[in-house]
Amino acid sequence: MNTVGHLINGRVISDAARLQDVYNPSTGEVSKQVALASRATVEQAIAAAEAAFPEWRNTPPIKRARVMFRFKELLEQNAERIAQMIGEEHGKIAHDALGELQRGIENVEYACGAPELLKGEHSKNVGPNIDSWSEFQPLGVVAGITPFNFPAMVPLWMFPMAIVCGNCFVLKPSERDPSSTLYIAQLLQEAGLPDGVMNVVNGDKEAVDVLLGDERIQAVSFVGSTPIAEYIYRTANANGKRCQALGGAKNHAIVMPDADMDNAVNQLLGAAFGSSGERCMALSVAVAVGDAAADALIEKMQTAMQSLKVGAYSDKSNDFGPVITRAHQQKVVGYIDSAEEQGARVVVDGRHPQVEGHENGFFVGGTLIDNVHPEMLSYKEEIFGPVLQVVRVDSMQQAMELIDAHEYGNGTCIFTRDGEAARYFSDHIKVGMVGINVPLPVPVAYHSFGGWKRSLFGDLHAYGPDAVRFYTKRKTITQRWPSAGVREGVSFSMPTMK
Amino acid sequence: MNTVGHLINGRVISDAARLQDVYNPSTGEVSKQVALASRATVEQAIAAAEAAFPEWRNTPPIKRARVMFRFKELLEQNAERIAQMIGEEHGKIAHDALGELQRGIENVEYACGAPELLKGEHSKNVGPNIDSWSEFQPLGVVAGITPFNFPAMVPLWMFPMAIVCGNCFVLKPSERDPSSTLYIAQLLQEAGLPDGVMNVVNGDKEAVDVLLGDERIQAVSFVGSTPIAEYIYRTANANGKRCQALGGAKNHAIVMPDADMDNAVNQLLGAAFGSSGERCMALSVAVAVGDAAADALIEKMQTAMQSLKVGAYSDKSNDFGPVITRAHQQKVVGYIDSAEEQGARVVVDGRHPQVEGHENGFFVGGTLIDNVHPEMLSYKEEIFGPVLQVVRVDSMQQAMELIDAHEYGNGTCIFTRDGEAARYFSDHIKVGMVGINVPLPVPVAYHSFGGWKRSLFGDLHAYGPDAVRFYTKRKTITQRWPSAGVREGVSFSMPTMK
Amino acid sequence: MNTVGHLINGRVISDAARLQDVYNPSTGEVSKQVALASRATVEQAIAAAEAAFPEWRNTPPIKRARVMFRFKELLEQNAERIAQMIGEEHGKIAHDALGELQRGIENVEYACGAPELLKGEHSKNVGPNIDSWSEFQPLGVVAGITPFNFPAMVPLWMFPMAIVCGNCFVLKPSERDPSSTLYIAQLLQEAGLPDGVMNVVNGDKEAVDVLLGDERIQAVSFVGSTPIAEYIYRTANANGKRCQALGGAKNHAIVMPDADMDNAVNQLLGAAFGSSGERCMALSVAVAVGDAAADALIEKMQTAMQSLKVGAYSDKSNDFGPVITRAHQQKVVGYIDSAEEQGARVVVDGRHPQVEGHENGFFVGGTLIDNVHPEMLSYKEEIFGPVLQVVRVDSMQQAMELIDAHEYGNGTCIFTRDGEAARYFSDHIKVGMVGINVPLPVPVAYHSFGGWKRSLFGDLHAYGPDAVRFYTKRKTITQRWPSAGVREGVSFSMPTMK
Amino acid sequence: MNTVGHLINGRVISDAARLQDVYNPSTGEVSKQVALASRATVEQAIAAAEAAFPEWRNTPPIKRARVMFRFKELLEQNAERIAQMIGEEHGKIAHDALGELQRGIENVEYACGAPELLKGEHSKNVGPNIDSWSEFQPLGVVAGITPFNFPAMVPLWMFPMAIVCGNCFVLKPSERDPSSTLYIAQLLQEAGLPDGVMNVVNGDKEAVDVLLGDERIQAVSFVGSTPIAEYIYRTANANGKRCQALGGAKNHAIVMPDADMDNAVNQLLGAAFGSSGERCMALSVAVAVGDAAADALIEKMQTAMQSLKVGAYSDKSNDFGPVITRAHQQKVVGYIDSAEEQGARVVVDGRHPQVEGHENGFFVGGTLIDNVHPEMLSYKEEIFGPVLQVVRVDSMQQAMELIDAHEYGNGTCIFTRDGEAARYFSDHIKVGMVGINVPLPVPVAYHSFGGWKRSLFGDLHAYGPDAVRFYTKRKTITQRWPSAGVREGVSFSMPTMK
Repeated sequence: MNTVGHLINGRVISDAARLQDVYNPSTGEVSKQVALASRATVEQAIAAAEAAFPEWRNTPPIKRARVMFRFKELLEQNAERIAQMIGEEHGKIAHDALGELQRGIENVEYACGAPELLKGEHSKNVGPNIDSWSEFQPLGVVAGITPFNFPAMVPLWMFPMAIVCGNCFVLKPSERDPSSTLYIAQLLQEAGLPDGVMNVVNGDKEAVDVLLGDERIQAVSFVGSTPIAEYIYRTANANGKRCQALGGAKNHAIVMPDADMDNAVNQLLGAAFGSSGERCMALSVAVAVGDAAADALIEKMQTAMQSLKVGAYSDKSNDFGPVITRAHQQKVVGYIDSAEEQGARVVVDGRHPQVEGHENGFFVGGTLIDNVHPEMLSYKEEIFGPVLQVVRVDSMQQAMELIDAHEYGNGTCIFTRDGEAARYFSDHIKVGMVGINVPLPVPVAYHSFGGWKRSLFGDLHAYGPDAVRFYTKRKTITQRWPSAGVREGVSFSMPTMK
Repeated sequence: MNTVGHLINGRVISDAARLQDVYNPSTGEVSKQVALASRATVEQAIAAAEAAFPEWRNTPPIKRARVMFRFKELLEQNAERIAQMIGEEHGKIAHDALGELQRGIENVEYACGAPELLKGEHSKNVGPNIDSWSEFQPLGVVAGITPFNFPAMVPLWMFPMAIVCGNCFVLKPSERDPSSTLYIAQLLQEAGLPDGVMNVVNGDKEAVDVLLGDERIQAVSFVGSTPIAEYIYRTANANGKRCQALGGAKNHAIVMPDADMDNAVNQLLGAAFGSSGERCMALSVAVAVGDAAADALIEKMQTAMQSLKVGAYSDKSNDFGPVITRAHQQKVVGYIDSAEEQGARVVVDGRHPQVEGHENGFFVGGTLIDNVHPEMLSYKEEIFGPVLQVVRVDSMQQAMELIDAHEYGNGTCIFTRDGEAARYFSDHIKVGMVGINVPLPVPVAYHSFGGWKRSLFGDLHAYGPDAVRFYTKRKTITQRWPSAGVREGVSFSMPTMK
Repeated sequence: MNTVGHLINGRVISDAARLQDVYNPSTGEVSKQVALASRATVEQAIAAAEAAFPEWRNTPPIKRARVMFRFKELLEQNAERIAQMIGEEHGKIAHDALGELQRGIENVEYACGAPELLKGEHSKNVGPNIDSWSEFQPLGVVAGITPFNFPAMVPLWMFPMAIVCGNCFVLKPSERDPSSTLYIAQLLQEAGLPDGVMNVVNGDKEAVDVLLGDERIQAVSFVGSTPIAEYIYRTANANGKRCQALGGAKNHAIVMPDADMDNAVNQLLGAAFGSSGERCMALSVAVAVGDAAADALIEKMQTAMQSLKVGAYSDKSNDFGPVITRAHQQKVVGYIDSAEEQGARVVVDGRHPQVEGHENGFFVGGTLIDNVHPEMLSYKEEIFGPVLQVVRVDSMQQAMELIDAHEYGNGTCIFTRDGEAARYFSDHIKVGMVGINVPLPVPVAYHSFGGWKRSLFGDLHAYGPDAVRFYTKRKTITQRWPSAGVREGVSFSMPTMK
Repeated sequence: MNTVGHLINGRVISDAARLQDVYNPSTGEVSKQVALASRATVEQAIAAAEAAFPEWRNTPPIKRARVMFRFKELLEQNAERIAQMIGEEHGKIAHDALGELQRGIENVEYACGAPELLKGEHSKNVGPNIDSWSEFQPLGVVAGITPFNFPAMVPLWMFPMAIVCGNCFVLKPSERDPSSTLYIAQLLQEAGLPDGVMNVVNGDKEAVDVLLGDERIQAVSFVGSTPIAEYIYRTANANGKRCQALGGAKNHAIVMPDADMDNAVNQLLGAAFGSSGERCMALSVAVAVGDAAADALIEKMQTAMQSLKVGAYSDKSNDFGPVITRAHQQKVVGYIDSAEEQGARVVVDGRHPQVEGHENGFFVGGTLIDNVHPEMLSYKEEIFGPVLQVVRVDSMQQAMELIDAHEYGNGTCIFTRDGEAARYFSDHIKVGMVGINVPLPVPVAYHSFGGWKRSLFGDLHAYGPDAVRFYTKRKTITQRWPSAGVREGVSFSMPTMK
């Protein structure tokens, strides 16, 4: 059985003391094993990064950017292979895996613009003959810790920008689906990155805690659940590191009475069930304003969901695949049970999907629940499964209060045709990423990604312009040249200056 | 005896349960008392700020900026009065107090540009007919905690920008010299700020801990010593707040053999002894490269220091005044003693200054110490007094290693005429604010202030462009309008909006 | 009778060889005379500006900005007096004159941000140890030529930004209403501007041609009619000057069937008749989509116009005042006549307004014309009077084609509630300034003003960010320091440096 | 014999009515012919561009950028072939041609960042509930007219940025060396650009005048000599087009007494003789401050020039190749003659170079002339050949006055080690591109290229950030949504949309 190792100082090595099974969620079987890094292995990666830093830092940004140009080419050339790796270990259908990769590549494209992005501000004559300017210098060695649900995209949010800014990187990806991440890092190496600038260590909490504790690590980027995000953030901060930690979500869409309902339903299908709902930007709650809107939504949704197809990653005609583990499958089903028990109406029930030939896969079918109330467990917590819950309210104001009252504030959306409603919503809602008729308002790579409230810990958002600031520190230089000797021609009487 | 109170919701109130003496350091006498806020008082201030927020947030930035335009006028009109207040409680000579105030006013001037500074980024067609843009929205209620050494300037680093960005503010200034700060806040009120937007609570750790713990406070800015900065940063972060905390410093100047020595000496005088060295940007260590440079520096410095005049704040001919307390006076003298004991040479000795008519004032004279070594206590710690120590090294490389090895990384400077030396230094030195022949490289108000290493905790620097980012959070909106009904003229056949 | 002179090198002088009458349009009487500058006078102003340039250019931007801070204060303190001057010579009612002045002051406020606006871009390591940055340096002496309709605002679009960027200025305002402009320039002088930096020459084509021909003038900003704008632009360019020349307009509003009609009517009233329609952003054509919208618009407009009040500038209850000259009054009436003759329907007829006590004033009453067609003279040309023409079309597409076919492309607006219609309109319409339910979409001072097509000649728009670029030229510096002698310690063995 | 045709609407066509010989300057022989486009052919290209515009304009910037990513790959893959084409027709040695191409590719890399570069400025609440933002929209069809000396680089300064901004392009390259330019355009086509977006027409003044006159052309970029630049600029402007026209140069280097002379000489060799001096940034005048510096410079230069090797493009060991035509060869020799006649001293004489086996090539050897004076013809005019002239002055001030007095102001440089001299020079010199110890201070692609004085006509510089502004026009949108009907729940009672 294959073992997935680590990438340290330009070479893939295996650290065989501790291994963990990696599953194929479409079949329920173990497909390979992943090495779990020991403290020594993680420290070896940090040391490699530390050693590579001085030269990489001094490499002109345009040369660093050119590695990213080449990296983009290699990612595109190997996209199918990466999608296959993701599918096998995560369960995503190819179109979805390719979509994830594409979103990741967009971050590489943005990193190609490093020379522009790293420009400092120059002020002439801040005082008489005194100039001052800022430089954005790299931090040193920085770390990333990433989740299972986007094994390609989320790492690509982090290391291309960190590296193009002049840092060296140690990535600890999810141990559930490690293969595509490692392979992507190897492609970066192939693109011409010097050894040691990019390192990958697979592992578990042991590896994480080394990264959080080692004083050579200057910053940590994390994406995962809120409790872990909070732990990472506090620990990293207490240890003097810069940190941004992205956590959970509960993303609501308001469906207004004037919405183009066919469009809304069409959009919600993908936003709620795509990737089995295992996305921090999944749209998991629809808030219908008025019963007429709610009834129309439920009816059209129910119809549309009849053609939703869940199944193995390998069949491209499927709409979405299994969830990540058997335990998670049971947890999702448990949330549906609890909603039903607490009085909600399960309109479309995905608890017992039939996936012929893959009876042991970790499948949950697309599920639609009506009459959900804020006090229900299934509303309060993040389900991370293919479940769309409908809450009915009487006014847009009520809908907004509901959203603002929730612990999370990652993404949200409104379906309307009315300019005023859209503007009021986007202005006032306490959520970091807002869609107007866009149910998955994930910012494009040249903007930044970040939730509010307990969806993000830190000042700066992920990727885009904020990432440039996160991965650099400002240095401000103030300069005056007091002596005019050379210019004023004393040079001639001065016998000495060669 | 006068009591200094608090400014809450537009009115000055006193909270008389606990009072603390405020001294005149030039005479050593108690001049007034300051009220120390109870938990209830601090919470009252927070509540006032919270109540004022919704309307202030919705006020167009240009209108918020106009309060700052007026505030600038009032500060300028009342500058002498403010300088007098500072002098009496802090001990600064008027020219120094006016300089501090001027630096503070520059931050108000910068805040006047809020409409420009708050612009978000707008992208047309991030996808077909999809637009996306960012908005920088205010955080809500934010707090500032400021030190005794700049009772006017440091608060002005914080609240003008915070407020012009749409936040409401609670300031806890130093209880050692509270009068000018309170008066400045009253001027802001007079400038037209709505009640509750700006609040001042005087107090001690009790007040600080309320600010750090109250969940209505969204962010905390702090300037003080490193141990407290670290405490503030960790506590604020653990409580879910954004925080930037500026700590201590030990600022070195490298004196190169090619330096214009007369200029260097002239610059160092002010940088080392101005404001009695009680500045986080004070230049307290001169690193002379080569004995020739060191000898010349010592000789010229010794001569120049003969005309340095220490004395009471009220005599404008003095160069600098007393230190803040008797305890601090003794601490500074102790550092000089220890240096001498550890083998350094006290070239100019300020331990027993004669200030006629002010024999009880907390004075320390300008002190110059040669042959200081890195392992001496006086080198390792921040003295915060009028003491310049000289370290001798053999090369610029040694000088830079010395600086990089120090715990702090606030400011530094090089004296040279050589372009290459300056550029190498500013590129590689691990310090956040670098001067080329500028010994106090405090960035101007339209750049940002921040040290590296243990001189600053947080991602974003103080004032300037970074402050705009610190006092706002990014919201990214993605918009698509799916229905073309109205445009395409269906409008005539409809009154059909569902 | 008073004579209005010139401001040259800090002093007001009169150049009495040629004088021209200045009228009070509310009474039809001559109120004073204005000196028309000779070639020698204009050259004297240019020489004063040229002489003041070297020192002003070297003045730090923050100090230049502080003159603008003070200027803003003085403008606000003297607002009533300025409004009175405008009203007497132009005919605007005080509320309108104060509004104009306020718009002008906003440009002064923007100029106060010069230190931020003038920042260049700094790139570290464009190659190994090579840095590069840009500086935006002033041009030298620049000129402005401004129209009668905004004697305060349009000059304030130009000279504050030009001057704060480090240029010296020669302004030739309109000779029809010169007093307020001259007074404003004197206030700038009072604000602390060094002599010669700002100069005003009153005059006619003789003065203009000196400005266009003198090689010491580096750039010309112009606002006026399109034929003159084109002449200015070509001549200035042919003489090697930078130029931006703003010309005429014909601004259309599309009224969609879903528009909030009461709001639209309310907005159109001010936009069409304010300042007697003598604004390059006046909304002079309403394009109603569908007869229902058109009928409703006409009916509501007719009703609303009953309370419109035209009269002398001195009565603050008036809505608008006279037009600028008797000749212009007749020209406006002529356009109404021609529309009627060509088949349009004059719904509200302002050709014979009764203004008791001011029978000789140059008044035209608010006029509403329905059934206007694109081939009518009154449609093709700019009327510059209080006349709103309604064109009826069948679809939004037709409305947009109409707008795009017009020679001018200054401003336009759509009234709708539909997000999609608004977005399609703003994306595709060939007009530089677009309003969504905003009939006078004059950009705020921190954005830039500029039409498309034959409404503006030049690359860069007026005021705001574009003005910073217009009034400066880019210098790019690339720097490498090849010799490491000083840094590497050769200094000790080198007996020679110094 | 091969004929070089045009690229129109995605296909290469030939327009055989008029043909012109294309030479191989290394042999002096005709190597092929180029078609000279008729009016009809140019109009066909314009029509193709016009037809392609609406769809290309609506293509999201990121998709336009991806064509540039692919274009970069193709340029790199075909670099040797392009260098060969350039060498054969222009005469450049391969290393120089590859260098030119690389500089061109850097502009493609910059264009890949279009989504970032095209961001507009968004302001929330410019008034209560009113938002305003700017968009930078493409112009339509734009044209480029480029010179023989950089057949790859200069076109690449223009069309990648123009196209990525959403414009369609018609390029008229130099008819002297047309092959590489056409081939590069074909690679862009291959990269996925839709037909008609990029068009190339070869031709002469007839083609140029069609481009300048056709009203469908919105903007013209030109690089060439100053008299033609001036003609282009005036004609384009008179015809209502935006224009930037770059002309000639006479670039001086000041050699200060403290310069690192070996470095200076080494740098000057390449800067003066590279590409036979046929560069608008060639360093053609060295101004030595003091005779000591001058003597040292002459002596070291003379020695270094002994190893300079001129010869055919095909031999990579050559330092530089022939000039472009026999006529130009004679013109360069004539300038050397005239300098000699006017009293200068020809130190190294390249008038009769021996290039074995290429006796008919258009060669001029590297030439060094001492004691040149400002009134000499060879000083006043641009030689555009491998000739370095030395002027001797007594002070830096004199050197700067010399530079400022010259008609051109493209590039300049100072060789010094002194920070103060460098800063004074870069601040005050009236030249657009300044080098500190960098003799060819061509800005990198993410800065902008532009001279001052008669070296550039227009407001905006070439490539880099300025190019984004040149190839787009600003549209400012101001938006208010007056009706709150939908949001406030009237939605339930309505089907009432009027």
